[in-house]
Amino acid sequence: MTTSAIADALRLPDGAVDLTSIETDAAPGFDGKKADGQEALATMGAELADLQERLWAERTVGSERRVLLVLQGMDTSGKGGVLRHAIGLVDPQGVRITSFKAPTDEERAHDFLWRIERGLPAAGYIGVFDRSHYEDVLIARVRELADRAEIERRYDAINEFEARLADEGFSIIKCMLHISADEQKARLEERLANPEKHWKYNPGDLDERAFWPKYREAYEIALERTNTEAAPWHVVPSDKKWYRNLAIAQLLLDTLRGLDLQWPKADFDVAAETERLAGESPVQ
Amino acid sequence: MTTSAIADALRLPDGAVDLTSIETDAAPGFDGKKADGQEALATMGAELADLQERLWAERTVGSERRVLLVLQGMDTSGKGGVLRHAIGLVDPQGVRITSFKAPTDEERAHDFLWRIERGLPAAGYIGVFDRSHYEDVLIARVRELADRAEIERRYDAINEFEARLADEGFSIIKCMLHISADEQKARLEERLANPEKHWKYNPGDLDERAFWPKYREAYEIALERTNTEAAPWHVVPSDKKWYRNLAIAQLLLDTLRGLDLQWPKADFDVAAETERLAGESPVQ
Repeated sequence: MTTSAIADALRLPDGAVDLTSIETDAAPGFDGKKADGQEALATMGAELADLQERLWAERTVGSERRVLLVLQGMDTSGKGGVLRHAIGLVDPQGVRITSFKAPTDEERAHDFLWRIERGLPAAGYIGVFDRSHYEDVLIARVRELADRAEIERRYDAINEFEARLADEGFSIIKCMLHISADEQKARLEERLANPEKHWKYNPGDLDERAFWPKYREAYEIALERTNTEAAPWHVVPSDKKWYRNLAIAQLLLDTLRGLDLQWPKADFDVAAETERLAGESPVQ
Repeated sequence: MTTSAIADALRLPDGAVDLTSIETDAAPGFDGKKADGQEALATMGAELADLQERLWAERTVGSERRVLLVLQGMDTSGKGGVLRHAIGLVDPQGVRITSFKAPTDEERAHDFLWRIERGLPAAGYIGVFDRSHYEDVLIARVRELADRAEIERRYDAINEFEARLADEGFSIIKCMLHISADEQKARLEERLANPEKHWKYNPGDLDERAFWPKYREAYEIALERTNTEAAPWHVVPSDKKWYRNLAIAQLLLDTLRGLDLQWPKADFDVAAETERLAGESPVQ
């Protein structure tokens, strides 16, 4: 499968991960400025819509294929913006977005993957996870919500889970939205300065921010341990919002292109149906 | 609440309904042609997005308000087109689309409203029903899937159900996409003529089409019996796709405007948080 320059640039190589060595304000694989990026994103709309409709059509003839886009990132990294600007390009009918918050009591009474399984997209859909099972090895590790042996178990459990999904027909795109601590500070300041954005601010965000180095470490470990062939990671520089949106739309487009989606063949006699419709009694 | 000329024109009056007296190819309340209508629709995008974000923000401070758009109409009347072109204008994160197909065995083992209840949008969402509980008094009546006494019971059950939703914080917009039998024929012909649209065609569609007069009657009864103050019906002329999309986006916009949505006030000390952020130790 041929991939774009963006996808090639963002694909995380195997091995140890050092996030400090990956720039947060770069635009790898794209040779242009903000306006070019916005135009390139808008231009993708038609092809994305066409491919999505083919994916959706396939399900009517029993295809099991579907896409799962996993979005992870620190607060303010822009998961919501990706949903609005990249996922907003495709038909909402074929999209299923699942947001994972702190687990409920019922969810906590099950294995961590229980609620993830329930949030999976059905065949034909583009599913998007706004946060995901990775929280169970990120905040869970940083805040010690589970003991270390359980955290260790989860990396393998995630890999097995995702490998099974791939076998079932899922194309999995995992994106870590990578911002700098300074950029997060600027975004939090913006929220505090604008009364229309106060609802997005939570004093707890600052408490989490104090754990930034621990989160970075938890991300590095998670990325290294779960960067599999079946479900590879992409680290998306996200200080530039336009690049972040463009890059994720491009990853989605590449994935859909790679599926070689065809319009389903009619499972009925087209000529006979055409004749039947032409010859019907007048309907009033 | 002030409504638009379109909403005023489409609001079904109380009393007996005669669908043959309502034009299918008109553009009531809109003084313009296709290009004007498409432009008017695009222009609504920014305000729709703003109001939807306010609705979404409100839920963070405990508001129970939400919107439920119910789409009903004969095959090919364009429910999918409305989802793509009107609902596609708003942030997919705040949209929940539920499509109701023939009920499953499990669904059939419950009251007809059981699966409807499960498909309702949570607070803050714009929910869209692609078909709905009205199928249980439409196809169920035409195809005699339930006995007459049960059908009769359902009209009242629907009214009570919708009145309860309104009390809970739902704004309900019910739309019947009104096309002519000739327009349906043309759209079915188009599907048969285009291999990329064969997947949308089902020979069963022609069987249903033969019941057109019975469906019209079932719609007329349902519209009359369930046209309540809490959840009024709009009959949307839908032979012109651009008008259908515009009209439904306008109904949604009117509804959101009528909610007088305000950005939530901060429930934290803004000055203290600003100071805390400014004074934090450097984060690396």
